[in-house]
Amino acid sequence: MLHSLPEQTVERLSQYRRVLLNYQYLEHAFIFSHNLARVLKTKPATVRRDFMLIGVTGDVHKGYSISELINKIGDAIDDDQPEKMCFVGIGHLGKAVSEYFTSDDKKLKVAASFYFDMSHPLLTDVPCYSITQLSEVIKQEKIFICALAVPREFAKEISMILVNAGIIGILNFTSVQLQVPAYVYVENYDIIAKLEKIAYFMKVKR
Amino acid sequence: MLHSLPEQTVERLSQYRRVLLNYQYLEHAFIFSHNLARVLKTKPATVRRDFMLIGVTGDVHKGYSISELINKIGDAIDDDQPEKMCFVGIGHLGKAVSEYFTSDDKKLKVAASFYFDMSHPLLTDVPCYSITQLSEVIKQEKIFICALAVPREFAKEISMILVNAGIIGILNFTSVQLQVPAYVYVENYDIIAKLEKIAYFMKVKR
Repeated sequence: MLHSLPEQTVERLSQYRRVLLNYQYLEHAFIFSHNLARVLKTKPATVRRDFMLIGVTGDVHKGYSISELINKIGDAIDDDQPEKMCFVGIGHLGKAVSEYFTSDDKKLKVAASFYFDMSHPLLTDVPCYSITQLSEVIKQEKIFICALAVPREFAKEISMILVNAGIIGILNFTSVQLQVPAYVYVENYDIIAKLEKIAYFMKVKR
Repeated sequence: MLHSLPEQTVERLSQYRRVLLNYQYLEHAFIFSHNLARVLKTKPATVRRDFMLIGVTGDVHKGYSISELINKIGDAIDDDQPEKMCFVGIGHLGKAVSEYFTSDDKKLKVAASFYFDMSHPLLTDVPCYSITQLSEVIKQEKIFICALAVPREFAKEISMILVNAGIIGILNFTSVQLQVPAYVYVENYDIIAKLEKIAYFMKVKR
């Protein structure tokens, strides 16, 4: 695995791969940087730089080999061992995600989903637990990544439980800035800011 | 309302406001750009530029007036009329969001939440409908914004229904690039790319 690719590059590599996987069964298929750039709404030069960083060079006339790209992206961003993650309070948004990570070749697995209320239908393809079992299950299953989407009044307490149980990567959907040790990697997603942004630009366009 | 603020600025203004609202009941309270920059993990110069764009200047010694900031941010990004939005398939992640937008002074309201399966417990404070009523309810309630989180095989069809019913702003949680008319503002959030990014940086740190 290469080390310390830029954050945006890692994110785009994951996105390129998802586009490329749609074409993986075409033999000897090639794609141009401008095709990928258009799908991802970025610049062809950005795509080419990202691929240069993971050691893939394209052919001026044919573009990039799709199978080579899929393999090299995997070498660059996947670990050799499948990594386990869990969902806390994320409910049905987790369904699409867990489906993507279900196939055997994926290096991330949804190992658990935690619920406040166990009485409603749960994710069918993921082991489901009560939030009271958080610490126990994370330790037992050796889970390191968590997507956290709980009401804000619980965010602080639950993030402490997560970190103490061994979580070192958190995708934080709560609007609370989590106070975690420096070795924990937190990616914040602020759904409220995104909605207000949409409302603003929608109006500008109208 | 000002027009055409930069996208990142609008998003940050929403975030600043949420931080500032915690302090709104302090009288004559002031805050420095570096305080806000630290909470939002950005640079003080960025904060100052954002505030300059909405016409707020701070005092070198005291900083910015919190109440003035809250008001000016509202003037800049809120519409005079409350804007209605809905959730499709987002389930419990919608709960925290709908709670934030419940109070009367907020200019975005969650007017509906749509479900594939009406048998499980639904959001208590938001009118809940079956996905089959999508078009009818959106038209009737005059909803313009939608957060979309359905399995990818439904994304295309449902986005067409949304747009035909009058939706002009979509927060897209599916990993599908939606094909919508140019007047529709789409903000994509790629949860899978974020999770793969976290897995990568977690490993680099370890």
